[in-house]
Parts: sequence; C-alpha cells; structure tokens
Amino acid sequence: MSHEQYQACIDECLKCMQACNHCYDACLEESHIEAMKECIRLDRECADLCGFAAHAMSMRSSYSSEICRICAEICEACGNECAKHDHDHCKRCAEACLECAKACRAMAV
Amino acid sequence: MSHEQYQACIDECLKCMQACNHCYDACLEESHIEAMKECIRLDRECADLCGFAAHAMSMRSSYSSEICRICAEICEACGNECAKHDHDHCKRCAEACLECAKACRAMAV
Amino acid sequence: MSHEQYQACIDECLKCMQACNHCYDACLEESHIEAMKECIRLDRECADLCGFAAHAMSMRSSYSSEICRICAEICEACGNECAKHDHDHCKRCAEACLECAKACRAMAV
Amino acid sequence: MSHEQYQACIDECLKCMQACNHCYDACLEESHIEAMKECIRLDRECADLCGFAAHAMSMRSSYSSEICRICAEICEACGNECAKHDHDHCKRCAEACLECAKACRAMAV
Repeated sequence: MSHEQYQACIDECLKCMQACNHCYDACLEESHIEAMKECIRLDRECADLCGFAAHAMSMRSSYSSEICRICAEICEACGNECAKHDHDHCKRCAEACLECAKACRAMAV
Repeated sequence: MSHEQYQACIDECLKCMQACNHCYDACLEESHIEAMKECIRLDRECADLCGFAAHAMSMRSSYSSEICRICAEICEACGNECAKHDHDHCKRCAEACLECAKACRAMAV
Repeated sequence: MSHEQYQACIDECLKCMQACNHCYDACLEESHIEAMKECIRLDRECADLCGFAAHAMSMRSSYSSEICRICAEICEACGNECAKHDHDHCKRCAEACLECAKACRAMAV
Repeated sequence: MSHEQYQACIDECLKCMQACNHCYDACLEESHIEAMKECIRLDRECADLCGFAAHAMSMRSSYSSEICRICAEICEACGNECAKHDHDHCKRCAEACLECAKACRAMAV
C-alpha cells in the first residue's frame, strides 16, 4: 500500500462522512420522511464508520485494513439505498459511498 | 443472541473503554515511559474501538457482530501487552480487556 | 470534584448514551415518524456527545468540564423533547437525559 | 456564517485531525519520548475533538459553535506545545492547529 493510496482512502472516507451526514440532515427535512428511514439509519452508520476509519488510518492503526473492510460493506449498503432516491443529496451521497467503498476495498486487501 | 448477552457485551466494552483510557493516562505519567509506548498505543486504539462497538450495539447496528470481531482482536492484543507490566493500572486493564474480548467473541459469531 | 462524583458523571453519560441510541433506533420504527424527527435528531446528538464526554473524562482530559457543560445543554434539550412523547423509550430516555444533565452540570462548575 | 466559511472550518478540522494523529504516531517513535509526553497527550485530545467538531458541523448540529469554541482552545494548546519541538511532524502539526484554531474561533462567534 503506497502512501498515495493510503491518503486517497483517508480522503474518500472524509468526503463520504460529510456526504452521509449532509444526506442524513436533509432526509430528516424531507416531506416523505417515512420513505427515508432506511436512508437515515444507514447515513448515520456510514458517516460514523467512515469517520472512525479515517481516524484509525491517520494514526497508522494496525487494524486499518480490517476496519476498512467493514467500512466498504456499510458504504455499499448506504450507497445502494441512497441510489434508490431522487433527491440531490441522496444522489451525491450514493456517489461518495461507492467511491469510498472502492478505496476501502483496496485498503482491505 | 439474547438481550442479556447483548447488554453484557455493551457493559464489558464500556468497562474496557474506561480501563484502557485510565491505563493510557497513567502510562503517560510513568517514569519509564519508553517501556510503556506499545501499551499507550494499544490502550488508545482499544478504548476507541470499545467505545465505538458499544455505540454501534446500543443503536442495534446490523454491523455489530463484525465490529465486535475486530474489537475482540484489539482487546486481546491490548490485554496481552498490559499483562507484561506490573503496574496496577496495567493489571486491571489486562483483566478488563480479556473479559471484553470474551464477550465480543460471543457477539461475533 | 471527588473521584466518586467523577465516576458518577461517567456512569450517567454512558447510561444516557445507551438510552438515546435505543430511543433513536425505536423512533425510526414508530408509525408516526414525522412526529419523531426532532427526537431522532436530538437522540443522535445527545448519544454522540455523552459518549464523547465519558471518553474524555475517562482519560482525565483537561477539557472535561467544558465538554460536560455542552453535554448538559444537549441532554436538557433532548430530555425536554423526549418528555413530550408517550412512548416508553422516550420516557426512559427523558429520565436518563435529565439525570445526566444534572451530573454534567456538577462537573461543569 | 456563509456556507464557504462553514465548509472551510470543516476542512481545517479534518486537516488538523490528520496532522495531530500523524504527530501522535510519530512522537511515540521518537527516541526522547519522555520529552514528548505532553505532545502525545494533546495530539490525541486535539485529533479527537477536531474529528468530533467536523462530524457535528457536517450534520448541521445546533451545538456546532459551542463545540468549535472548545476545539479552538485545544487547538491552541496543542499548537503551542508542538511549536516547542523541532521535529518536522511537530512543526506541521503546530501550523495545522493554529490554522484550525483560527477557523474555529470564527465559527464560535
């Protein structure tokens, strides 16, 4: 794992954390909140784990690759859920999640 | 997984988080800090992950068992490191880590 | 601040973190989720900050009292919101929040 | 507070979190670790709070400005400590901390 790949994964996690927290906040303001509850739940979990993964990688934790493996799974689940909705914040979140999942998969090897 | 086992695992994680943070703080005050650096490093990682696992379990995250699997590994590593040292805070931390590792292994199945 | 008061505040924060995360999870399953959105939002913020405060206190952070001051505010806001709802999880969460707010106010002096 | 200032503060917090975690990791490897213990302690607290502040701002928490007020204080303390040391990682961390303190002060108004 080169330094560049490592930093790229931290960057994707931090972008994804922000996109998920923004989507979470916006979903709670949507008129059909009933339809958004799985999105709200996954946004929170994904934001929390992306933040934790970035934190772990930035202190060179020996457990980074294992944390990134779970992070990739949550990112995929969250990205797939967000992709079902038409809101701009969901579309942007889905993109960030899928990019982050890719970077985390590469770290998890 | 019964409700009692679930709560027991949360309780062990929160006890372990406190023991690790206390040990971390005390290690930084020891006179032979050079000898304690692996302990300091693992105490922090273990405290962070135990806190994260308790947080995930208490919101019934679908990823609890995977998070507990990594938590068990870090707890074992931290417990084994602490067990090498004679300080009271290290001994108590080692015990908390090994109890927590056991509870997390049960959750991780 | 005696050791007992310090530990009591950590304990209240960890109880409150769990009550808020449980209430958050249960609110997302309620049929009238529209009515619960402020509760969901505050439950998350309160759980996150209570966890952070317990973490800070358990490593004897010099910033514990300032963190507890904000924690007391969020706990009061969350407790007041939860007290408006009849669900059991909201009632229990309101109680945990108000107990925690009291303990945090004592730490914040 | 314009959207740009808000995002700028999130960005500074995330840069500072990484610089502090990197400095923390590097300090633990220094030969005169005894001299670095205050740096280690503050690096951890500063990284944790910067991460928490970025998280809170990205979900538009109503408590962002109060969290940023404490974050500014820790950043200043950490930046001042790091500035005493000649290691490259300390110098870079001191810069990141002082930039972040400035951005957090602006948010805290």
